[in-house]
Amino acid sequence: MEPRHGQGLIDQERLWSDLMTLGAIGGTPAGGSMRGALSPADREGRALFSHWAIEAGLSLRADRIGNLFARREGRDPQAAPVMIGSHLDTQLPGGRFDGVLGVLAGLAVCRALDRAGIVTRRPIEVVDWTNEEGARFQPGVMGSAVYTGALDLDEALARQDPQGISVAQALHQTGTAGTAPVPGRIPHSYLELHIEQGPELDTRGKTIGMVTTSSAMCSGYATIRGANGHTQTLAMSRRRNALAGAARLVLAIEEIGAGLEPAGMVSASVLENWPNNRVNIPHLSTLSWAVVGFDPALRNAAVARIEAAAADIARETGLEIEIDHRHYREPCHFDDALIARGMARAAARGLPAMTLPTLTAHDALSFTALCPTALIFVPCKDGVSHSEAEWCRPEDAARGAEILLDLACEAADAP
Amino acid sequence: MEPRHGQGLIDQERLWSDLMTLGAIGGTPAGGSMRGALSPADREGRALFSHWAIEAGLSLRADRIGNLFARREGRDPQAAPVMIGSHLDTQLPGGRFDGVLGVLAGLAVCRALDRAGIVTRRPIEVVDWTNEEGARFQPGVMGSAVYTGALDLDEALARQDPQGISVAQALHQTGTAGTAPVPGRIPHSYLELHIEQGPELDTRGKTIGMVTTSSAMCSGYATIRGANGHTQTLAMSRRRNALAGAARLVLAIEEIGAGLEPAGMVSASVLENWPNNRVNIPHLSTLSWAVVGFDPALRNAAVARIEAAAADIARETGLEIEIDHRHYREPCHFDDALIARGMARAAARGLPAMTLPTLTAHDALSFTALCPTALIFVPCKDGVSHSEAEWCRPEDAARGAEILLDLACEAADAP
Repeated sequence: MEPRHGQGLIDQERLWSDLMTLGAIGGTPAGGSMRGALSPADREGRALFSHWAIEAGLSLRADRIGNLFARREGRDPQAAPVMIGSHLDTQLPGGRFDGVLGVLAGLAVCRALDRAGIVTRRPIEVVDWTNEEGARFQPGVMGSAVYTGALDLDEALARQDPQGISVAQALHQTGTAGTAPVPGRIPHSYLELHIEQGPELDTRGKTIGMVTTSSAMCSGYATIRGANGHTQTLAMSRRRNALAGAARLVLAIEEIGAGLEPAGMVSASVLENWPNNRVNIPHLSTLSWAVVGFDPALRNAAVARIEAAAADIARETGLEIEIDHRHYREPCHFDDALIARGMARAAARGLPAMTLPTLTAHDALSFTALCPTALIFVPCKDGVSHSEAEWCRPEDAARGAEILLDLACEAADAP
Repeated sequence: MEPRHGQGLIDQERLWSDLMTLGAIGGTPAGGSMRGALSPADREGRALFSHWAIEAGLSLRADRIGNLFARREGRDPQAAPVMIGSHLDTQLPGGRFDGVLGVLAGLAVCRALDRAGIVTRRPIEVVDWTNEEGARFQPGVMGSAVYTGALDLDEALARQDPQGISVAQALHQTGTAGTAPVPGRIPHSYLELHIEQGPELDTRGKTIGMVTTSSAMCSGYATIRGANGHTQTLAMSRRRNALAGAARLVLAIEEIGAGLEPAGMVSASVLENWPNNRVNIPHLSTLSWAVVGFDPALRNAAVARIEAAAADIARETGLEIEIDHRHYREPCHFDDALIARGMARAAARGLPAMTLPTLTAHDALSFTALCPTALIFVPCKDGVSHSEAEWCRPEDAARGAEILLDLACEAADAP
């Protein structure tokens, strides 16, 4: 089928126009986007996607966690669909490509099939998963995890943002939830196109990356408890300052991370300090930490080093420090046949390609254990992501969408 | 006049009952109070004080920044009044005594004069100053500074709390502002009773402390700028992590503070981290710092050391660090005649007393340059303050109020 959906079928200008138009919703002066999950801007972004989907002849449905499905019917409506998904929510603020590219490329695939007059046997569903980013509501990849059954619906609905608004309330406020049940039907296969969010493709001059595995991760919190007191009367030597303990732990974590390079990284990026005013000695600080790496054993060793550092700091300062393991994620493996197929199609299209692992989480991870799943990367400038400066070249976005088209055609059984 | 208003005229049980009752407004499970300036709880606290003032035959007025004056008329209504002031707002949370004791002791003085049948020549005004704590709105000692003209009314009204609510809005919401003009009339003299908030009196077994001077202070912010990036893709060696820079500065400030002991202290207690989420490298952190000490030269040297540490960290990390001097406060000197009078009255009443400096700011500081001003300290348990565990013995509270009564009688020209 290659000749019928070869290079040229993806409308690069339209895809780019869609990316820039959607990026302008919740757009920031620095050129990024701010569409927190289930915010008014996220609703507007979904409304625009819905408009384009209807324009392309797709039918819409939403499920109870707000995942939004745009379906291109197949010759066999009973067949399990091929899903092409990613997310329209962003970091606060984020860039114009992370997630958005994968959803809008799905639309571009459907339009390309229309132009070629192709009706696949299997339906194709383009999906916007709710709250992939986890920036407003924890955990991230929420919608896809609820869809696959990895996360309980009621647990997800109860999660609150920092203002105390629950996912259930935000779904209601934005009119985002639908009636389709969760967990949902396992698709025939799952395909996702995403910017790499790291520097490998950009550095090596590759256009296409077929992802082989995801990283091992462990994330949690450290809770540091000291004693209250007046910052202008209590002698330094009598203080038990939780922020000072948190500072030591931040630096210890940086050092552990530096020792892990290049096999992974360790970050402490969220710090809450209580009561955080000038006249009270900080007596409760919480610090997030996260270890990512490809080798679970190295990940586990880094976690153990964080625990040991916390114990040392507690002993030396008299602070209480509790390390709380919130979440382990083990490596996921993408489908070898789809990887090979993606590499072959890139070669056929003359696109420089490589296989690579991913350090970051994606909605696609939720599907690797359930059905053949592929994650296609295209380069982003200097590897910068989760930033208003995030950038993907128009031609790279379109070339990625073409590989997505190729894989979707085969999976959906194009004539 | 000593015989007529000697020990016994202050009703210790009533004063204690008032303290506990007012402390229950905004009361916390741990036994403290949470009455942020111009909050609903602060309004309720002021309403109760107003009720008690009217019950005691005092007349009420409020000025445009919400300072609340309860006036006991004198034989000469035109004479400049003696002011007895402090504040009913608290830290978030705070204790039951910081500020509250000074206001309620003022009421106790008026009641004592009533019981003794004394009408002073000068009026006595008991004042609740708006927002002494600075916990919700910066700066602290706001109401007294606006009253004395040290702070412009419009500038104060425009200040916002972390939720973006301005002082003007909060005054309106709580119905706290009155029509009396600011700056207000300079009183004949200003008297304030306060818990020490430090350990000197408690450690030395003294009941009364007559404050001689206040500390030299300098407070400001450090702004640390790094670069955004994805915590799960950007190699550790390529990061410019603002939180890591803030952590180094926290520890440097702790070390500078330790070196200043016992001549003063240095605190870094407020840290804001941006964007403070798991997947972005922190790229903007702000850290408050404050130096207090009795010697302005030592204070200045500590500030210089903070600047030098920030420059070192910036050079070593590639972060941008800006040190912003927000506020210098020079030592204030309390009135020698009032100090001597307070020491003499304590001796006459058989109370162990000492003179001492204060490290912390109080509303009384606003008056030292304008009129004879006295600040009387009573001990608080273990020197603990700005804490729900703050504690003052009932008998110490009453003994402090008796010295306040003695000084007020003389200043107001009791018969």
